[in-house]
Amino acid sequence: VKKVLVTGAGGFIGRQSLSPLQAAGYDVHAVSLDIPAGSPDGIAWYTENLLNENVMSSLVDKIRPTHLLHFAWYAVPGKFWNAEENLDWVSASIALTKSFHRAGGKRAVFAGTCAEYEWSQAVCDETSTPLRPANLYGICKNSLQQIVTPYTKMSGISSAWGRIFHLYGPHEAPSRFVPAVIRALLTNTDARCTKGDQLRDFMHVSDVAAAFVALLSSPVEGPVNIISGKPVTLADVAGLIARKLNNSGRLQLGSIPAPPNDPPIIVGSSKRLNDEVGWHPARSLEQGIEETITWWRNNL
Amino acid sequence: VKKVLVTGAGGFIGRQSLSPLQAAGYDVHAVSLDIPAGSPDGIAWYTENLLNENVMSSLVDKIRPTHLLHFAWYAVPGKFWNAEENLDWVSASIALTKSFHRAGGKRAVFAGTCAEYEWSQAVCDETSTPLRPANLYGICKNSLQQIVTPYTKMSGISSAWGRIFHLYGPHEAPSRFVPAVIRALLTNTDARCTKGDQLRDFMHVSDVAAAFVALLSSPVEGPVNIISGKPVTLADVAGLIARKLNNSGRLQLGSIPAPPNDPPIIVGSSKRLNDEVGWHPARSLEQGIEETITWWRNNL
Repeated sequence: VKKVLVTGAGGFIGRQSLSPLQAAGYDVHAVSLDIPAGSPDGIAWYTENLLNENVMSSLVDKIRPTHLLHFAWYAVPGKFWNAEENLDWVSASIALTKSFHRAGGKRAVFAGTCAEYEWSQAVCDETSTPLRPANLYGICKNSLQQIVTPYTKMSGISSAWGRIFHLYGPHEAPSRFVPAVIRALLTNTDARCTKGDQLRDFMHVSDVAAAFVALLSSPVEGPVNIISGKPVTLADVAGLIARKLNNSGRLQLGSIPAPPNDPPIIVGSSKRLNDEVGWHPARSLEQGIEETITWWRNNL
Repeated sequence: VKKVLVTGAGGFIGRQSLSPLQAAGYDVHAVSLDIPAGSPDGIAWYTENLLNENVMSSLVDKIRPTHLLHFAWYAVPGKFWNAEENLDWVSASIALTKSFHRAGGKRAVFAGTCAEYEWSQAVCDETSTPLRPANLYGICKNSLQQIVTPYTKMSGISSAWGRIFHLYGPHEAPSRFVPAVIRALLTNTDARCTKGDQLRDFMHVSDVAAAFVALLSSPVEGPVNIISGKPVTLADVAGLIARKLNNSGRLQLGSIPAPPNDPPIIVGSSKRLNDEVGWHPARSLEQGIEETITWWRNNL
């Protein structure tokens, strides 16, 4: 039986991974500080703090998972880029990986980030783009990847590292770009945005979670971009939302300046995900935005 | 008053750093699993295991050092290159650095390694040589450097990272190259060596320790090679030992094969150490080898 330990299972991505994991035949053991409302039946929940190494180690010994899907990290919007907590999660993730090995684990997938790449490059590619992160979050994720990749290999664990780009969907922090625009236009207030010519790759969080489940079930090793491969500008995304809500009047592109050092382009190659993992997103951007608008209508 | 916490203070390099630190005016607080015999008077010793995070944290809070000189790591000869313990020392070193910051620390120097560099490059240079370590030891040291450099900067701690190349001297593990040749020739048994055309940079451990003390007392930040800048072949070193001991007959160069993947060249630039730190080794290789032979005569 395939028994998966999912960390950060109550988080933005983690909570969307539970049903796909069950559908793929996993016995799902989920750890999180809190159990999210409306989670599917049949999940074994553990409300524990993984930063406590003794607690984490006992938990892994008790569950003895064959598979590990590690989403947990410090993720407070606006603060996580350079928070000291990034360092704690490097140590906790190292300890978790060692515990998983001691407990007989066989396959592990970790959540990485596009922030590991040097952003001056046009298209982030897993094998050729330099890893030169510009912030502590990217540095810590990249350092962890450098460590767990050889460690898992020498420990007989098959592992992969999914690099997340931009995402949106249910339960996203309201201050972030997509929810901020949707909520403003839904409540008929001004959606004040930058000019919006920044090029990004957006994926619905349910697709991101499904991609991780597909990666976990595949034999693919090493870094894999979790990405649609279809770059859009922020103005495209905001315009799509405004069109769906029939409220272009309140969309004020160019009314605030872009943050300093905001990279003009963060896009990447989806080749490994599409061709090696054999996975493609279920939703177009339009479908994903429609679903997300519906969710926010019910959760304003 | 300058108060330094030295970790690994009983180790091969750490024990040689204590007198130079005192001479440079530091109040020296030394932590180690054991207190080495013959250590200088006036050192405050703490026999603690830094891998125990609670113990380490209490110790730092008690001492409240202004300076940190971090040598401690897993260093069992032959085993350290790919040992799992490297991962533990990444976590312990992160926790130590955070504790040092919380306790008000101002200047930290960490022991790095030439194994952080890609060894296919001819001359390892701090700014231009790619960091592409070939073993877990180099990977973990490099990952730690990637993390502590920005973390110390944003925490208001001045920090540097001394990359150690090859070294020799008193108390070296007997199985290693220089002691093995000296001990064989001293006892008139065969010194079976590889052909010895590997190019390396050797420094006497007392000079290595003195270089770290100079680096600690300087304002230089970032990676600095701890290196003589005068490459020699292993055959040169072995030949020098044989000459000093008048026993060339027992030196059998080429009688064993070089280990697989033994890099032909591991050398580097001493420019930052010489020009920015303003430090040069006190001993020539010949003087250092003479001192080391004398030490082994008394410690066979």
